[in-house]
Amino acid sequence: MRNLCLTIEYDGSDFSGFQRQPDRRTVQGELESAFSRLLGEPIKIIGAGRTDAGVHATGQVVNFLTENPLPLAKATGVFNSALPPDLAVKRVAEADLEFNARHWAKSRIYRYLALNRPLRSACLGRFAGWVAEPLALAPMQQALALLVGERDFSAFQAAGSPARSTVRRLLRAECRCLGDRFWLTLEADAFLYRMARIIAAATFLVGSGQKPVEWLAGLVEKGDRKLAPAPAAPQGLCLIKVVY
Amino acid sequence: MRNLCLTIEYDGSDFSGFQRQPDRRTVQGELESAFSRLLGEPIKIIGAGRTDAGVHATGQVVNFLTENPLPLAKATGVFNSALPPDLAVKRVAEADLEFNARHWAKSRIYRYLALNRPLRSACLGRFAGWVAEPLALAPMQQALALLVGERDFSAFQAAGSPARSTVRRLLRAECRCLGDRFWLTLEADAFLYRMARIIAAATFLVGSGQKPVEWLAGLVEKGDRKLAPAPAAPQGLCLIKVVY
Repeated sequence: MRNLCLTIEYDGSDFSGFQRQPDRRTVQGELESAFSRLLGEPIKIIGAGRTDAGVHATGQVVNFLTENPLPLAKATGVFNSALPPDLAVKRVAEADLEFNARHWAKSRIYRYLALNRPLRSACLGRFAGWVAEPLALAPMQQALALLVGERDFSAFQAAGSPARSTVRRLLRAECRCLGDRFWLTLEADAFLYRMARIIAAATFLVGSGQKPVEWLAGLVEKGDRKLAPAPAAPQGLCLIKVVY
Repeated sequence: MRNLCLTIEYDGSDFSGFQRQPDRRTVQGELESAFSRLLGEPIKIIGAGRTDAGVHATGQVVNFLTENPLPLAKATGVFNSALPPDLAVKRVAEADLEFNARHWAKSRIYRYLALNRPLRSACLGRFAGWVAEPLALAPMQQALALLVGERDFSAFQAAGSPARSTVRRLLRAECRCLGDRFWLTLEADAFLYRMARIIAAATFLVGSGQKPVEWLAGLVEKGDRKLAPAPAAPQGLCLIKVVY
């Protein structure tokens, strides 16, 4: 028995998220059916992050057990040839039999790209959220910095997939900009359901001057989901790295 | 009568090119049917560059005549609301009645993005060509520099849409790279059919060491289409600007 660990990349636009669902095109579903056919045995995929519908990944990590002796040097090419154009394997490694991509992950890093301009974009719309109101960088950076630490993030959890504990450790929350593009980088031990996108939406409200800098951390303290905004559009979000 | 001049942007992936064709989804076709409906009169679009199927644009320019008194300040928003997500208007201006987006253009600037890495990309595949062999920047820059000037580019014209004269003035031919991304920028008074993509493909052969630096300009001198390579993949190419 071998435990293969894969770094994968996908354009989430045409997937109903990572997690397998009956009669839906999902990343897990595509991987399991392609690899089961390829390796001639039923394959069960474990993923580090359960990204939502429309959310992308350039550094998702998955693992699966197989009896197949496929040489590692050939694996990336063989796997890629069995996958659709919007899903690709970047790296294949052999891991301890106990390795579990989800439970062994120390943290996940997400990046949110927002296009800040009055008009929508035909080319970037697939990979960016759109904020029409002019954003100011400094207040966004200040608001995000106040968020870092171990906190109860229940105000930033959408209904639909409740976690047993809503305490998460936010290790990094930064914002950069270049021209009309704003990137938010968020690293946490784990994210609650839609937490990254709700933080992004709240940060944009600070950046556009609709809310003061302290409002974002105040939302966390109050713990009331109803005070936080709706999640930012999924197409701006990308899982860029899983840290082990 | 008014002559409106629009700068438009499109993700060419799902279009059969710019030029209207019966029973095909084209940029011109989409613009004409959306604007005819919107303005209540038959609209005939003139475009500066007839981009191929799969080729994108961030700075295509079009114009059309209309009797409609729609205020300019509202036009961009109104036009965008009538267009599909992969096609957008960036700017609307009123031009001389004689202005013609195609005939008045002094030059067109195209950019080709190539991803230079052993593995294909799931996220960038829609907007980049893919070159697996390692590319060296300097020989590509040297080969392109030798191409600048007024020449007979008949070796770089694909069959299917012959031009009366194959003499074109190449004003700029540059290459830059950042990490595994290579950008070719080509500016010419006009381009022959698939000329930009054939130049890109030939430049990559120089960059990968399969052909010497002087080979590219030599192709032009020999004027033999059969010696030049097949066009590079359309998804890497983008019409970024039209100069008037």
